[in-house]
Amino acid sequence: MAGPSTYFDPADTDELAPRTAELVRRRAAAMGPAYRLFYREPLELVRGEGAYVWDRAGVEYLDVYNNVPSVGHAHPRVVAAIAEQAARLNTHTRYLDEATIAYAEDLLGTFPGSLEHVMFTCSGSEANDLALRIAKAATGGGGVIVTRNAYHGGTTEVAAISPSLGGVDSLAPWTRVAHAPGGGADLHAAVASAIADLELVGIRPAALIVDTIFASDGVFPDAAGLSLAVAAIRAAGGLFIADEVQAGFGRLGGGSAGAGPAGGDDAGAAGQNGADLGLWGFARYGLEPDIVTLGKPMGNGHPVAAVVARRAPIEAFAARGRYFNTFGGNPVSIAAAQATLDVVREERFVEHARAIGPRLRRALEQIDSPRIGEVRGQGLFLGVDLVDDAGRPDEALAIEVVNALRQRRILLAASGPGNNTLKIRPPLVFNDTDASRLVGELDAVLKELS
Amino acid sequence: MAGPSTYFDPADTDELAPRTAELVRRRAAAMGPAYRLFYREPLELVRGEGAYVWDRAGVEYLDVYNNVPSVGHAHPRVVAAIAEQAARLNTHTRYLDEATIAYAEDLLGTFPGSLEHVMFTCSGSEANDLALRIAKAATGGGGVIVTRNAYHGGTTEVAAISPSLGGVDSLAPWTRVAHAPGGGADLHAAVASAIADLELVGIRPAALIVDTIFASDGVFPDAAGLSLAVAAIRAAGGLFIADEVQAGFGRLGGGSAGAGPAGGDDAGAAGQNGADLGLWGFARYGLEPDIVTLGKPMGNGHPVAAVVARRAPIEAFAARGRYFNTFGGNPVSIAAAQATLDVVREERFVEHARAIGPRLRRALEQIDSPRIGEVRGQGLFLGVDLVDDAGRPDEALAIEVVNALRQRRILLAASGPGNNTLKIRPPLVFNDTDASRLVGELDAVLKELS
Repeated sequence: MAGPSTYFDPADTDELAPRTAELVRRRAAAMGPAYRLFYREPLELVRGEGAYVWDRAGVEYLDVYNNVPSVGHAHPRVVAAIAEQAARLNTHTRYLDEATIAYAEDLLGTFPGSLEHVMFTCSGSEANDLALRIAKAATGGGGVIVTRNAYHGGTTEVAAISPSLGGVDSLAPWTRVAHAPGGGADLHAAVASAIADLELVGIRPAALIVDTIFASDGVFPDAAGLSLAVAAIRAAGGLFIADEVQAGFGRLGGGSAGAGPAGGDDAGAAGQNGADLGLWGFARYGLEPDIVTLGKPMGNGHPVAAVVARRAPIEAFAARGRYFNTFGGNPVSIAAAQATLDVVREERFVEHARAIGPRLRRALEQIDSPRIGEVRGQGLFLGVDLVDDAGRPDEALAIEVVNALRQRRILLAASGPGNNTLKIRPPLVFNDTDASRLVGELDAVLKELS
Repeated sequence: MAGPSTYFDPADTDELAPRTAELVRRRAAAMGPAYRLFYREPLELVRGEGAYVWDRAGVEYLDVYNNVPSVGHAHPRVVAAIAEQAARLNTHTRYLDEATIAYAEDLLGTFPGSLEHVMFTCSGSEANDLALRIAKAATGGGGVIVTRNAYHGGTTEVAAISPSLGGVDSLAPWTRVAHAPGGGADLHAAVASAIADLELVGIRPAALIVDTIFASDGVFPDAAGLSLAVAAIRAAGGLFIADEVQAGFGRLGGGSAGAGPAGGDDAGAAGQNGADLGLWGFARYGLEPDIVTLGKPMGNGHPVAAVVARRAPIEAFAARGRYFNTFGGNPVSIAAAQATLDVVREERFVEHARAIGPRLRRALEQIDSPRIGEVRGQGLFLGVDLVDDAGRPDEALAIEVVNALRQRRILLAASGPGNNTLKIRPPLVFNDTDASRLVGELDAVLKELS
């Protein structure tokens, strides 16, 4: 579980500047006790551009955390697209809108031809929720298999398959947990065991769902046994759902899983229109999922998400009733999504992530500190394990490092099952100068704390 | 169930103009079989302003259907707020943002003081889903009581309490259906019976949830027995959730339930700050819900929604885990919501709805046609029953009327359990000229079809 200890402790306001303390107080009074803020000293951000954000005092921070503003904070193309469409019309999918259809076609062109349809939602949570509804309708099953520290969202249904949110005790009785990749674990064996466990109690498997970069499990770009696990769930009558909410839209820089430390040069399976964009994590495994879910970076921050799926499961779902989502696929959200996809292509962010990722990774590996354990990842999605002198996960150190970097104007967070993995997933405009700044500051912080 | 028969039949493309037929074909190919379009001749809308929308050929339509663009299509204040904030910064609730806090405070000021906190989501579905999570955490119960033809959204959890979506067969085993208002039904007796039925099988009641205008049940502004039903669910240990996704943000024009045909002049309970905005349907009953959900008109079309609740249930929920919604409460969504709320106040839409609603209702009642049955409603949310010669619900007539009005450039839809109730809920800028146009065209259509 992403430990609450990396968050601000509401009881700890003594050291805060008066304005910060007052905002914290007003926020808790109005928004209640369930919300969390980052850092011991919460940040009040007022402006963003590219990979940088600024606080109210005008201090600039390098954003190494936010994967949502994927093509850069406040990208002018995306902002203009939103403003222009909002000034024209914002309706819904019960009227015809050519731009919505054109975006659907454009997006599908980046997927294998077997993935024929797209349906729009407002959030990744809604997308995963809809994916499960579709999978259950299509298979007649109810069992869902997830990885050990999975996070798939916040609706009732997807919270019940997200052990990272409330622990394994919070899962639904039809959820089974397969061991995550890492530490020599093989997904195939774990998924086969979960299928057997479901069948033992008479629950038909509906789906195996995995985040294709295994972010909350600690960032694993080359999961051993994933392809065989997919074959196993299909043999048991279930579907394979690839959750691309975090990995998708080019962050991984294409490439093939298992092609060596940097992932190789192969950008994965070709899309429907023959395009080879390398936008999707599943493509690195040569897989063709039954359902794919999209979210976070899809509209560069605008609330838009989607389910992409084969025809047969959607037909089974449609036979049970119509689909409508008031805001899902509205013309303004589509304008944001189309502009974002256009920018990913025109500014060649897949190629950029593929080029800079391995350089950043090597630079992180070369930091001279016994506190750095394994460095993993692909493209601009990296995980850096922080360890103690004996090489064990060091959550306390990770918390110190995250807060010390914030003071040095570098924003990132810790994640993974031990909450000791630095999660590095900046906006894709992140360049070599930014990388040097990150590596330099991390080096300095580790020296300071050691 | 809102009958699929008011929707376009994908098999019926012969009469369509070539461009429309081609868009319908491309849309079905890309977006699949679960989506629906309005009307026998689907509309391609390209522009909106106030209560009007235009199709690609430049033909203007009077919008009597869309409650989402509540302060008018493409309202310049809302568009400017979105554009300005999108150009500055779009992040999330793990950083401090004064405008988000200020909006939360402003919004809470329109509620009774017992409703202390607000939490943000992207859609009404997510809001109702979160409300149920909170209610279940707070009560330890699992049973949920809804009205006969309720619609509360599209996530797995809320679809399972929405009989209007997939029929009563699609409901969860912990859902109980109480008879809706209308036809002399008393909600108190129906809810008491549902509570007894839950308890009989050992399910503890968690919540009674009602749309306070009972829109999908046929539009009932004065539900007999609602206050006693709320007392009954509380006595059984459950919470009362007021779903204001459709009724909220001023459409009902304030007033008290049961104060006569036009609802009276009392604008309901005062808010925390003493303001008397009459924004909420529950206030007309003098009720103080445990949880309120908001959505559709909250950002005038921008995807933003919320849960407003008492402190105790949110504390119980927070004790089980933190809350985060990537897009929920982001600064751009908040800017849209704040601008919308400001415009509702400054352009005095509550007073406008209170004034024009009764005039429109009387004009509809005065249409000289035996096909018009009961006319119900409050403010700018009205239902007009269409009946046959014997006074029975006439769904076939409603379908003809909806399509004939579309040809006469008036957009509305049919709803209610018999799908024979015309649902009149235009943008709140709808004025007396618009009302005359609607009434005149409806009169003409009924004469033509009789």
